[in-house]
Amino acid sequence: MSPNRQMALMVQARQASTFDPTLLTHIIHDGEENTSSRRAALARVESALGITDTMQLPHLHTGLNRRELYLEGLRRGRAIVTDMLQHNHTRFVNLTERSQLTNATPFGLNFLMFRRTINLQGTTEQKRYWLPLIDRMEINGCYAQTELGHGSHVRGIETTATFDSAAGEFVLNSPTVTATKCWPGGLGLSCSHAVVAARLVTRGVDHGVHWFVVQIRNISDSTPIKGVTLGDLGLKMAYNGTCNGYAHFNLLRVPGSSLLAAHAQVLPDGTYVRNEAGAPENLAKQSYATMLEVRRVVIHWAAFGLAQPLTVATRYAVVREQGALMFSQPTVPEVAILEYKTQHQRLLTLISQAYAILFASKELDDCFEEYQQEKREGKLGRLSSIHAVSAGLKAWATQAVAAGAEEARKMCGGHGYLVISGLPEMVATACAAATFEGENYVMWQQTLRYLFKQIGVLQAGKMLDCDMTESLSGYQKWLQVKEEVSHLLPESDQLSEPATLLKIFKHHFHRLLSAAHFFYSQQTRTSSPAEAWNASLTRLLPAAHAYIEYLVLKFMQRRVAVVGQAQPSLLPVLSRLTELFALTTITNPGPSFTSTSFAEDHILTADHFLQMRARIDELLAALLPDIIALTDAWDFTDASLCSALGCRDGNVYQRLMSWTKQLPVNQQDLAREAWAIEGGIGEFLRGDITSGTKSRL
Amino acid sequence: MSPNRQMALMVQARQASTFDPTLLTHIIHDGEENTSSRRAALARVESALGITDTMQLPHLHTGLNRRELYLEGLRRGRAIVTDMLQHNHTRFVNLTERSQLTNATPFGLNFLMFRRTINLQGTTEQKRYWLPLIDRMEINGCYAQTELGHGSHVRGIETTATFDSAAGEFVLNSPTVTATKCWPGGLGLSCSHAVVAARLVTRGVDHGVHWFVVQIRNISDSTPIKGVTLGDLGLKMAYNGTCNGYAHFNLLRVPGSSLLAAHAQVLPDGTYVRNEAGAPENLAKQSYATMLEVRRVVIHWAAFGLAQPLTVATRYAVVREQGALMFSQPTVPEVAILEYKTQHQRLLTLISQAYAILFASKELDDCFEEYQQEKREGKLGRLSSIHAVSAGLKAWATQAVAAGAEEARKMCGGHGYLVISGLPEMVATACAAATFEGENYVMWQQTLRYLFKQIGVLQAGKMLDCDMTESLSGYQKWLQVKEEVSHLLPESDQLSEPATLLKIFKHHFHRLLSAAHFFYSQQTRTSSPAEAWNASLTRLLPAAHAYIEYLVLKFMQRRVAVVGQAQPSLLPVLSRLTELFALTTITNPGPSFTSTSFAEDHILTADHFLQMRARIDELLAALLPDIIALTDAWDFTDASLCSALGCRDGNVYQRLMSWTKQLPVNQQDLAREAWAIEGGIGEFLRGDITSGTKSRL
Repeated sequence: MSPNRQMALMVQARQASTFDPTLLTHIIHDGEENTSSRRAALARVESALGITDTMQLPHLHTGLNRRELYLEGLRRGRAIVTDMLQHNHTRFVNLTERSQLTNATPFGLNFLMFRRTINLQGTTEQKRYWLPLIDRMEINGCYAQTELGHGSHVRGIETTATFDSAAGEFVLNSPTVTATKCWPGGLGLSCSHAVVAARLVTRGVDHGVHWFVVQIRNISDSTPIKGVTLGDLGLKMAYNGTCNGYAHFNLLRVPGSSLLAAHAQVLPDGTYVRNEAGAPENLAKQSYATMLEVRRVVIHWAAFGLAQPLTVATRYAVVREQGALMFSQPTVPEVAILEYKTQHQRLLTLISQAYAILFASKELDDCFEEYQQEKREGKLGRLSSIHAVSAGLKAWATQAVAAGAEEARKMCGGHGYLVISGLPEMVATACAAATFEGENYVMWQQTLRYLFKQIGVLQAGKMLDCDMTESLSGYQKWLQVKEEVSHLLPESDQLSEPATLLKIFKHHFHRLLSAAHFFYSQQTRTSSPAEAWNASLTRLLPAAHAYIEYLVLKFMQRRVAVVGQAQPSLLPVLSRLTELFALTTITNPGPSFTSTSFAEDHILTADHFLQMRARIDELLAALLPDIIALTDAWDFTDASLCSALGCRDGNVYQRLMSWTKQLPVNQQDLAREAWAIEGGIGEFLRGDITSGTKSRL
Repeated sequence: MSPNRQMALMVQARQASTFDPTLLTHIIHDGEENTSSRRAALARVESALGITDTMQLPHLHTGLNRRELYLEGLRRGRAIVTDMLQHNHTRFVNLTERSQLTNATPFGLNFLMFRRTINLQGTTEQKRYWLPLIDRMEINGCYAQTELGHGSHVRGIETTATFDSAAGEFVLNSPTVTATKCWPGGLGLSCSHAVVAARLVTRGVDHGVHWFVVQIRNISDSTPIKGVTLGDLGLKMAYNGTCNGYAHFNLLRVPGSSLLAAHAQVLPDGTYVRNEAGAPENLAKQSYATMLEVRRVVIHWAAFGLAQPLTVATRYAVVREQGALMFSQPTVPEVAILEYKTQHQRLLTLISQAYAILFASKELDDCFEEYQQEKREGKLGRLSSIHAVSAGLKAWATQAVAAGAEEARKMCGGHGYLVISGLPEMVATACAAATFEGENYVMWQQTLRYLFKQIGVLQAGKMLDCDMTESLSGYQKWLQVKEEVSHLLPESDQLSEPATLLKIFKHHFHRLLSAAHFFYSQQTRTSSPAEAWNASLTRLLPAAHAYIEYLVLKFMQRRVAVVGQAQPSLLPVLSRLTELFALTTITNPGPSFTSTSFAEDHILTADHFLQMRARIDELLAALLPDIIALTDAWDFTDASLCSALGCRDGNVYQRLMSWTKQLPVNQQDLAREAWAIEGGIGEFLRGDITSGTKSRL
């Protein structure tokens, strides 16, 4: 391909960088060695899939129907699983070769949740039996919890597993239409097995929800096991490479050994026995731990899920020349859209958010590793705080990704609306995360509930959880506050100092937490705790949101300091990005329903806001030369982006036209069909008019 | 269908209404007579399409590929055009039977833009020739302006139309790949004709962009005219019932009469003559007028585009019982999700926005009608202000719709992610509007540019445009301001008064306008106007945004007062909705990049914010019984919503399962194919394990 103007613009923008993006890639992908082995694995998989020619229209974008989208997902899922089995690694257990969550493939839940559930709920013997089958991919399992009428609220589950002591079997049944298992990834068409959440009933007593391993399809001929009705939920906004499905159980008999019995078992005579490990508090902690692990994966993904559309939008902004600045001379050529100040600001603000999520995710992972170490020593103390943070961070990050991905798409104008831009799929993929693995409005509440408990600890004069000491230091003064008061930022505090910015975030968090707690306490005087909580919800969520934002800034500042010590050449750009994140979070209101403006804190004067906006301008100007390097650093392959607008070479127009011409719709003669069919266009139109020759006009 | 629990909940919620929604329907649809004729037309079209059985899976949701989606769009487009021709009406010229913009059908641009362009740019003779052909649907035309490398910036257009005086013909040519016409709705497969924007070149002189009517397909056999390459752009996020296309002209010869010559013509010898009506200022005004008409349609649509997903989400929230309030007893049954305070708040806040857009749209229509009347009397004075308002209102409304539709979708949890919920298509449809017919970031600038001109008028001591007298009354004091100052709301101003709320909005607008103007003026000291404007963009847009929000509140208050006089029974509910709109706009930050928090104005104290949030709680409680009536009033048919979650009867679960089972993916045996094909699932899995009988565990 001979270089054209767009490609030249891209080379130029890439050369402007003030740092070596490879060094940042090593930070993002956990070291040089891991970066290389990641690249090697991607190269093998993409070569096996035959998707390395960037001028060839990706099969995914050929206008597929439900069936074809699923079969393409299957082909891709096979490729990464095969690579893991052949090369003995686990790189694609969490994220696919396209940096999507692996539940986007028909095999993803096998490792992500099916294996985890057996590992946590099964006895030693059960684990010894099932886990090797999973690891060798001899079975493919899914996670069947939610039902048509019941989401994440486990208590609402209707499916029953009734013990028949005469046969030593459980009888699985879906008593109503709303009891139909609904949504599990892979359930519709692809799985041989499932872990099924069902109410254990024995001797006429309902012992609540337990987990059962159940075969759902005959492996020999792929038909559903008798007693199970299976199906696909059809097209979704995205994730169409897998088959989110439904399952209806009609008195299906499964062996007694199907019950995952680490915590409770049923004796042959039907006696229900709860093990020591099955004590309610331990069970709750176990289930916290599972959710936490999955949420960590979601938060980790979120950084990539935002960086992908931003990589596309940034590259496009560099090469897309469109329009002129207002008041410029009619003769000036069109300018690259990155030159528009708003485009420049939107892109860099969102890029700072992607890095903020990345660094927060790494800090959370470190916390979790430390906790795992402590757990081995029998200390479970930090679990509650890590759980509260992970819940809130999941909500915050997935909200940022969904909004940011769509903003990035809008920044690509009309072409960003085309499926071949890759952006619609990225947005639709991002939007799912606000709902799954903990609906965000439920997540915020979990975070806040923990914070209220810690306020209770503080009020009782007891010791805060160790992770909360710093977050709640100085909160004492808010305990006395009955009405909101102003605390203007001292003049000695320089806005340019990271510590000052963190202080502003902390004050925002403390003020909202105090206001939420005060409001809730007032409500409890006249209402039940449940009513009071619900009546306060619109005050509670912003407090949880502010807490997470404070933590994210703290995490980012801390991580950037560490990175900067190891790689001083990265310190200037990452410090600017951190400061930009902080300042834009203060000045640009976030999503409306869960946040409250920093301006309501009355800690900052009008003059502070002027200063902050001036500083944002400086940061935007300083970061502009690095904008391509900051997106290149994520190291997405062209094949993984699947975008006619976002390839590394910047050759957008030739690729757009080339891909478009390869579309099946332009290979077939669809126009002839549309005009000729009964009720087609041809029945309207009458005779040629001015067909290329002189008319009477 | 025997009523079930969900249907009973819906009946109950509907009965709670404090007003008759039919009366509100008459307001929304411009009178009782118009409401009935609308219903009759919808009934005919839906019956002709065979889509009235709500338990039957809509064909649109069967998992179609590109080709099938287009053919379904064609079928639907035919149905509405046929109904208009047979019953002699124009009801579907702007909005389809599904309340989408008609550019969602292959015939939509024929009336919406092709006809309009000829009407405005053609000579009397040209109009007499072409318009009847269009009105009888004997030709189908599209609007070919944008190019692969060029969006709405008309100056960038590369297509040329070179006059050949020997032949008396123009030669249309696309000189580069970026000159390819790109995006026109209907261009790909469906149109026989197009109005084409091309640079008129005669005697070697480029006279800039002019319009040409060009035949692009042979009607007899549907093939492209020789010299034109046509194709489809493939799948988009939505609008897949039409064929947004591309066209490349290769020295296509068209008759000299193809030039739409109302404003300029080329004499047989190649002399270019500009008519009096073609004077630049008149041309600019004419083109304003076209854009304005189309924008009015977009703003009108926006209200319906937001009301649709809200109707679905509200109905679902009434019947979906999920989870329990935090701290409630384990034994309580699950609650309807509408009971959660955040769901309740989000739904009603967004419903208030949909009504705000509706009323603003009606006010704009009235202004425009008045202007049309004045224009006939030769007065064009108000065009600039109406243009500025329509640009900003288009940006504001489409931004609200895109964000609100996605928020509504998220409120439906996992099921809202299913294509059969209808919501993904509504969201994707809404998202397009932020880009087309004036990219929103361009629109905001047009609004602000006008406001700056009016400030100039004020500074020069001249007369403001009549529409601006009220908006800029009291702005004098801001002209003196060099630094921002606080103006606390006087204690005598009651927050509950509509006038007080409008005053707060106006102060917000004035402060931001003054800050933007001051910043821009500072920049011009050291930069060119173009650079200064661009450097100020992030300050300018919030001022334009605040102006529009002020107007929307003013329009809504005015309209509600008028409606309330005619229908006193509607006054309480509409007044509450207006107040809720005002208060939530103040307290909940809007979309981040174009707005600035009201709290930065320092006109409101912390105590004011407490009062406002308390008042929001009261309003939410008062409006709750009316939430179904407020959505029923839009009068969407079940067939038009195309949603398994949003039908009027509330029977969500039976319909979800019924539609799901009808999906082709569940009729074919796709699992068998997926397991048996080469590289399929069957190659992984080995032998049946615990297949329904006792295993060794």
